[in-house]
Amino acid sequence: MKCKKCGSKASVNMRQHKLALCTEHYLEWLPEQTERFIKKYGMFRPDERILVAVSGGKDSLSLWDILVRLGYRADGLYLGLGIDGRRSPLGGGINYSHESQRLAEKFANERNLKLHSVDIEKEYGQPIPMLAEKTHRGYGKPCSICGLAKRHEMNRIARDLGYDVLATGHNLDDEAAQLFGNTLSWSADFLLRQGPVLPATKGLARKVKPLCRFYEREMTAYCLARGIEYIYEECPFAEGAQSIYYKEVLNKLENDRPGAKLTFYLKFLEARKSGELFIEKDVAQEHLHPCPKCGQPTSAPDLCSFCRMIEKVSSVLPTEGVHIE
Amino acid sequence: MKCKKCGSKASVNMRQHKLALCTEHYLEWLPEQTERFIKKYGMFRPDERILVAVSGGKDSLSLWDILVRLGYRADGLYLGLGIDGRRSPLGGGINYSHESQRLAEKFANERNLKLHSVDIEKEYGQPIPMLAEKTHRGYGKPCSICGLAKRHEMNRIARDLGYDVLATGHNLDDEAAQLFGNTLSWSADFLLRQGPVLPATKGLARKVKPLCRFYEREMTAYCLARGIEYIYEECPFAEGAQSIYYKEVLNKLENDRPGAKLTFYLKFLEARKSGELFIEKDVAQEHLHPCPKCGQPTSAPDLCSFCRMIEKVSSVLPTEGVHIE
Repeated sequence: MKCKKCGSKASVNMRQHKLALCTEHYLEWLPEQTERFIKKYGMFRPDERILVAVSGGKDSLSLWDILVRLGYRADGLYLGLGIDGRRSPLGGGINYSHESQRLAEKFANERNLKLHSVDIEKEYGQPIPMLAEKTHRGYGKPCSICGLAKRHEMNRIARDLGYDVLATGHNLDDEAAQLFGNTLSWSADFLLRQGPVLPATKGLARKVKPLCRFYEREMTAYCLARGIEYIYEECPFAEGAQSIYYKEVLNKLENDRPGAKLTFYLKFLEARKSGELFIEKDVAQEHLHPCPKCGQPTSAPDLCSFCRMIEKVSSVLPTEGVHIE
Repeated sequence: MKCKKCGSKASVNMRQHKLALCTEHYLEWLPEQTERFIKKYGMFRPDERILVAVSGGKDSLSLWDILVRLGYRADGLYLGLGIDGRRSPLGGGINYSHESQRLAEKFANERNLKLHSVDIEKEYGQPIPMLAEKTHRGYGKPCSICGLAKRHEMNRIARDLGYDVLATGHNLDDEAAQLFGNTLSWSADFLLRQGPVLPATKGLARKVKPLCRFYEREMTAYCLARGIEYIYEECPFAEGAQSIYYKEVLNKLENDRPGAKLTFYLKFLEARKSGELFIEKDVAQEHLHPCPKCGQPTSAPDLCSFCRMIEKVSSVLPTEGVHIE
């Protein structure tokens, strides 16, 4: 297989695009495509300040790398979740959060980029697995609490530090799996919100996913070709997660019909845009009010879900050693 | 496992309903449920005349049996497609159409029911596999031509003989597979029309699917318990069909999460009804005009797809032996 641009030996073959490229041209092609998607979906302008949610994994580090290469003003945000596989029966034997933080900081330092770090345990008194355990949410899995905390904290930092937009490294496999799950349950709330851009609402930053059209394997190839050191391990709690199950089903489809995953996602976006299938829903017009504690918008009658969770935990924990502002 | 109604040994266990029944109570339960769905979705009234499309398979014969047991005025329609596995490389070694017709007629005769029969070859000069071959549609598979011809002929007979409604034996597995395929491509045309009832439009009979909430295995169990003789073999052309592939994917989901298939279909119907996800589309308001040849409504500018197909075939075939009215 030869590179379509220079004829030299191709190192990346993308069946679904009928395109093979050598490493050099692949490293050009992927940011060019990202730029195309940023413009196509109106994600952000060159003068806007972007906060990239960085986990230390291949997707978020690549995203940060690409945005900087494209000349955007992108800083990073690392959230310390306190996940340590050595302390969990689900294990994995790795101090996941420690290692991912090290790699995120290494990436930023080597490139002289600005990385904000927030430690959930320092801010709220307990790491994510403990918060999950104390609140009895998620059937023994902290994933639901973790998602809640991440959304809340990313928003808080973006707002407090004046960023225009929050960018996450969700790739096509992530997006297709989420879409698949939302479709199996025909969840209107989720189906009408999912997309490359979630517009800002009062108190919530705009959220964008510039990598949403790249396959996971394409992001791995980019990260390796750029020599970016990233955390290989999945979060020790990810095993058995719904999203992984949906990814397996979609991988079977993709394997039988190359391009199936991309078609599924893109046809959905087209159908949303065409107005011929789904109703229009103005996310900004939803009836939300500011949480009396943190100020973030919520549809709950009083405190937002995050603040309710923190209140619940602080009432069951000894007050000593808990640092809740 | 004991029957929930009488405590005797259960013969059918429906995990997704958390219900086990003995044969006797199962044979009561399934028609009761069918009656419930007929009313819930407003399929037809007791005074209406129903034409059941009968293939000789377990679903359509069971449907006819159930409707008669429930006291409805239901006649049968058998379409002779001229499919003979002995003449096809896809084979199977069985004269599929001959055997299915024999079983449909046997069922009707034993119960003194009225069965209309239409032979495609006699009406249009060629059996389905030949029509497909001559029109070069469907990549060597006659399934697309077969569907077109069945829809056209069922409508024609229903209209000519004055039936109020056309009932087909599609079960949950059929409906979920179709929905799955339509979802993968986000086809608005299909997604907004799929459901237990397709209302009548000028020139097109109302179409209903009273078995759409029963799993395929539930229909097999009913057919066996009632002692109905049906054709076990699939159509010899079905192998490798898209619908069978989608059924396999859904069977994996169902196996991992019992009830997944039913939930997928029912949540879709709920979402359609709620108006909170999909736009409203009035199927009856579509811009259709009568085909100048057969009079059935079509969106094509001149002849309907079926009549165009027949014209195409008659122009490439020697006229001798072709009986097109």
